[in-house]
Amino acid sequence: MAVLHHSLDFILSSPVDSASTVPGLLSIFHEQGMTETVHDTQGHGYLATLVGKNGRFAFLRVHSHGTVTIDLQCYQEDSIAEVDNLLNALEKKLKTLLNGNIKRIKRLPALIRGAEVDRYWPTSDGRLMEYDIDKVVYDEDSVYQKIQILHSKQYGNILVLNGNVNLAESDLAYTKAIMGSGKENYAGKEVLILGGGDGGILAEVVKQKPKMITMLEIDQKVIDGCKTHMRKTCGHTLDNLTGDCYQILVEDCVPVLKKYAQEGRTFDYVINDLTAVPISTEPEDSMWEFLRLILDLSIMVLHPSGKYFTQGNGVNMTDALTLYEEQLGKLSCPVGFSKKVVCVPSYLELWVFYTIWKK
Amino acid sequence: MAVLHHSLDFILSSPVDSASTVPGLLSIFHEQGMTETVHDTQGHGYLATLVGKNGRFAFLRVHSHGTVTIDLQCYQEDSIAEVDNLLNALEKKLKTLLNGNIKRIKRLPALIRGAEVDRYWPTSDGRLMEYDIDKVVYDEDSVYQKIQILHSKQYGNILVLNGNVNLAESDLAYTKAIMGSGKENYAGKEVLILGGGDGGILAEVVKQKPKMITMLEIDQKVIDGCKTHMRKTCGHTLDNLTGDCYQILVEDCVPVLKKYAQEGRTFDYVINDLTAVPISTEPEDSMWEFLRLILDLSIMVLHPSGKYFTQGNGVNMTDALTLYEEQLGKLSCPVGFSKKVVCVPSYLELWVFYTIWKK
Repeated sequence: MAVLHHSLDFILSSPVDSASTVPGLLSIFHEQGMTETVHDTQGHGYLATLVGKNGRFAFLRVHSHGTVTIDLQCYQEDSIAEVDNLLNALEKKLKTLLNGNIKRIKRLPALIRGAEVDRYWPTSDGRLMEYDIDKVVYDEDSVYQKIQILHSKQYGNILVLNGNVNLAESDLAYTKAIMGSGKENYAGKEVLILGGGDGGILAEVVKQKPKMITMLEIDQKVIDGCKTHMRKTCGHTLDNLTGDCYQILVEDCVPVLKKYAQEGRTFDYVINDLTAVPISTEPEDSMWEFLRLILDLSIMVLHPSGKYFTQGNGVNMTDALTLYEEQLGKLSCPVGFSKKVVCVPSYLELWVFYTIWKK
Repeated sequence: MAVLHHSLDFILSSPVDSASTVPGLLSIFHEQGMTETVHDTQGHGYLATLVGKNGRFAFLRVHSHGTVTIDLQCYQEDSIAEVDNLLNALEKKLKTLLNGNIKRIKRLPALIRGAEVDRYWPTSDGRLMEYDIDKVVYDEDSVYQKIQILHSKQYGNILVLNGNVNLAESDLAYTKAIMGSGKENYAGKEVLILGGGDGGILAEVVKQKPKMITMLEIDQKVIDGCKTHMRKTCGHTLDNLTGDCYQILVEDCVPVLKKYAQEGRTFDYVINDLTAVPISTEPEDSMWEFLRLILDLSIMVLHPSGKYFTQGNGVNMTDALTLYEEQLGKLSCPVGFSKKVVCVPSYLELWVFYTIWKK
């Protein structure tokens, strides 16, 4: 039973005395059978808690600096019409009482709290975003991470790992970006994919008839979920771990990369599609050291004329992006890089992608 | 002085007695010098209001169906560390108290209420979205509408008309979509733009050297704002109302369309970039009748082999889209149509665009 949390805020040009607004608002609450308890705020304006029927509660605050905030909590099963009427009546009354002193009225879409299906997945820079998610289609905890696949009306199914939106079926733009934005020719090439358990990159590279794709994905449960629920992304590529021109190794990429490096094996393309904070069976010193280890190993197995592609971070995460770029200057082998900002539909923020090459 | 509204929710597998959670939580509030008033909820679980220093208030609810919700309001100037510590302590305590009974813990990014700059602009289907807006660069009320241009870190400046996100400097995808997704050749063509005061379509069509573009924009104040603050979108096209191959008429499009229809004047392309609910000086019977009037007039001035482009609505607004398509069947002249779903970066939802032609 979800709780709808409504808010109605009046931002004023100048402070008001609570005596000029409170009685008028209380009379509206009283009409709805709600009764107040007034609190001692220690000089921080007026605060009353109001209790009504059906588990309705309201909090009325008249802030001493000139804002009126009203919170109204009710159950999702409550009468929408009654709750709307109450909010409309409060808004109308405040408009009259504060006439000429109103800078802005803000009534946000109600927060849905405690619902069966969670719709709120913040951006990388911590902004609140409400998705149109109506169903959880896959929900598994692997030894590595929490794996959820959620259905969105507009984006199709969305893979969410440890609470971070990873990829939706609508997000071909992500796959194209991490493959070099359509400027590369994969035909006849040796390709290494790190991570990529949703199968999106695999499915797109396969179409270009490469010589061989090796994909190193640590988590079988990601593959299992995606091969059933993300078929617009992976097609049939995840149905078998080997295909005409690809093999999927369900392994930690770090020891495999080390082995390839030792053998002197190289790839024309290395595509790092690992999660932002990669998971591994290796002992980690720190996130940045671990990221640098993977980078170093990847560059070692990169053909001198090859390209390394990876996703970076949300475009607003400037500090994290700068730190990442600093790591690129600390690798065993000098590298050059370029970056591109891309709109990935389900991300609800612009995302940075990197191209890295040996100098 | 903005209010930060924090929320911390525990969704449980089975209901809990408030006696098992409340004393432990209250002790944490008490440590922070907050004292409670317990309310009579008429059988709807436990509710307490807590008042603390610096204008901090909290609301603790233990719902009888098995959810614990905590709201914490504090001022933006309050100590972030202290508030975080309090929320962390509450979360830790609840994790211990409810061990084994927790389905989900949700701590949303704090709502910022009553701030100088408003960051919340919902989608067409009423979902809450927090933009990275840090500045209002233009704020004017014209006789037709409220015009705001807001600065976003990632999207550049965003034109917001009557509270609806219209176009950001990042949104070339919108302009491309409403011009026919790159499949049209405007060279030497007669083009009519309805609305389009941000100059985005004008600037892109001009590049293709059409014979003549006529743009009918009702609101000089939109042009004024955009020519200063949306230059990534409009370039220099709005600096003058006439150019080599275009003229901007600052007029209501309806009487002009009527005149063109009467004169038998036709265009190769009509691009309707009016707001979803168009504004006009004409008396309106109803929104749909008015939309049909504009459609009818537009089709009248469309060359038999011409194309009419327009934006529709958010892809989740299925009822509104169906109603729109029904209008297309009621025009004086039979038309065919196709639609395309496009990701416009600043919209934070997928958007439907229409192509319409004379049958």
